[in-house]
Amino acid sequence: MERTQAGESVLSRAVRIIEAFAPGEDWLTVTELAARTGLPLPTVSRMVSELALHGWLERDAARRVRLGVRLWEVSVRSSPALGLREAAMPVLEDLHAQIRQHAQLGVLRGNEVLFLERLSAPRAVVNYTRIAGRLSLHASSAGLVLLAHAEPDLQERILAAPLKAYTPATPTDEGQLRRILATIRQTGSVHCPGYLHPDVAGVAAPVMRGREAVAALSVVVPNAPEARGYEPLLRMAAAAVSRRLDGGTTFTQ
Amino acid sequence: MERTQAGESVLSRAVRIIEAFAPGEDWLTVTELAARTGLPLPTVSRMVSELALHGWLERDAARRVRLGVRLWEVSVRSSPALGLREAAMPVLEDLHAQIRQHAQLGVLRGNEVLFLERLSAPRAVVNYTRIAGRLSLHASSAGLVLLAHAEPDLQERILAAPLKAYTPATPTDEGQLRRILATIRQTGSVHCPGYLHPDVAGVAAPVMRGREAVAALSVVVPNAPEARGYEPLLRMAAAAVSRRLDGGTTFTQ
Repeated sequence: MERTQAGESVLSRAVRIIEAFAPGEDWLTVTELAARTGLPLPTVSRMVSELALHGWLERDAARRVRLGVRLWEVSVRSSPALGLREAAMPVLEDLHAQIRQHAQLGVLRGNEVLFLERLSAPRAVVNYTRIAGRLSLHASSAGLVLLAHAEPDLQERILAAPLKAYTPATPTDEGQLRRILATIRQTGSVHCPGYLHPDVAGVAAPVMRGREAVAALSVVVPNAPEARGYEPLLRMAAAAVSRRLDGGTTFTQ
Repeated sequence: MERTQAGESVLSRAVRIIEAFAPGEDWLTVTELAARTGLPLPTVSRMVSELALHGWLERDAARRVRLGVRLWEVSVRSSPALGLREAAMPVLEDLHAQIRQHAQLGVLRGNEVLFLERLSAPRAVVNYTRIAGRLSLHASSAGLVLLAHAEPDLQERILAAPLKAYTPATPTDEGQLRRILATIRQTGSVHCPGYLHPDVAGVAAPVMRGREAVAALSVVVPNAPEARGYEPLLRMAAAAVSRRLDGGTTFTQ
């Protein structure tokens, strides 16, 4: 790999330029890209030009830059996320039709939950999830069911770290979290009233492949007494996706 | 940009490696990647290692390679496709709930239609569409509505080229295609019985922003007499997405 005098490869610099776009962010100027990546302006300018030739970046008349539709196409059409998403989608649609709020599919990536898909109703409650967005494991229902089935190492790291209280209801105490995780392993689902926002509850269940939780199905609903009653629905939906996965998609974590 | 002796930049080689994965394709070996890209095996091996460090590629125990979930995340979370997809999704869901077959959203890219989204029913008819997949403009309902509103240059190029007959019903004759395109501009929708498969019909309408068709909504249904009756439904759905776009998403082609 050719390396610049700073010792960083051309490829790493290109990765940094593309990763500089924050979730939901659209146009950036070359100057903004240089500031965010710490790369010299002429370097960014040259790499943007080359990436634009391939359609991986696009420029407008004002020379602002955004990610190209070609990059989306290339990464989506062969993504390992696509197999899981296709297996889950019919079930997610049924779930969404029953609940008429947000229904979503998440996977564990690093120490967060990454959302592969979300279906929303026009007048649904507030929801922090975005497609390809991430949430904390300890505060989201999808995160908690993934954490309950994660490697002991990851569980201990999360439990030992200082945990953010999004609301007074967010579980941040180690003992409390251990009890929540144990209950999830026993019951196969979780109900999270007001953990991320006072008005909102999350309900989730894990999609299992053998003993491995490969994903979480969750709904985000108003924080009302009946939300707890959605747990069996989520368990049934997650079991349906697990069965569809056994049917042969090639997704593995 | 550092260049190799062959004159191709490192960045272009990396783009070629990532683009070597065909739609829906999962694992490839480094040898297969070298054969497809025409790059030397050690070069591919070195670049795969570096891309794997960034999570843009992933390797399994047998050293096979696939696209990384990180690449999916980065390209989806800030994609210009996401704004259009979010504007269309509630309408696409309603459409899908009414038709209980495939409902999809496509955009014009080059001389094909690229599908950004697809909702399918478990027992729906055969469908060649994949998310991030492409179809010919002259043979698909989504393609024809986009072609009808495309730049005259593109229309003339498509009409002048030899066109593939997927079935005996596929329109490949220039005069016939000109009539279809004129009808679409007049009526605002199209019904394509058996153009891609004898058992299947496509029905589509364009999503307009001003005078520009920024996308096509389509359904893929059994090739039966009532399929033509879906045209008003598709026009209504496409108009609803057009209105939602006016409400402020930032997608532009």
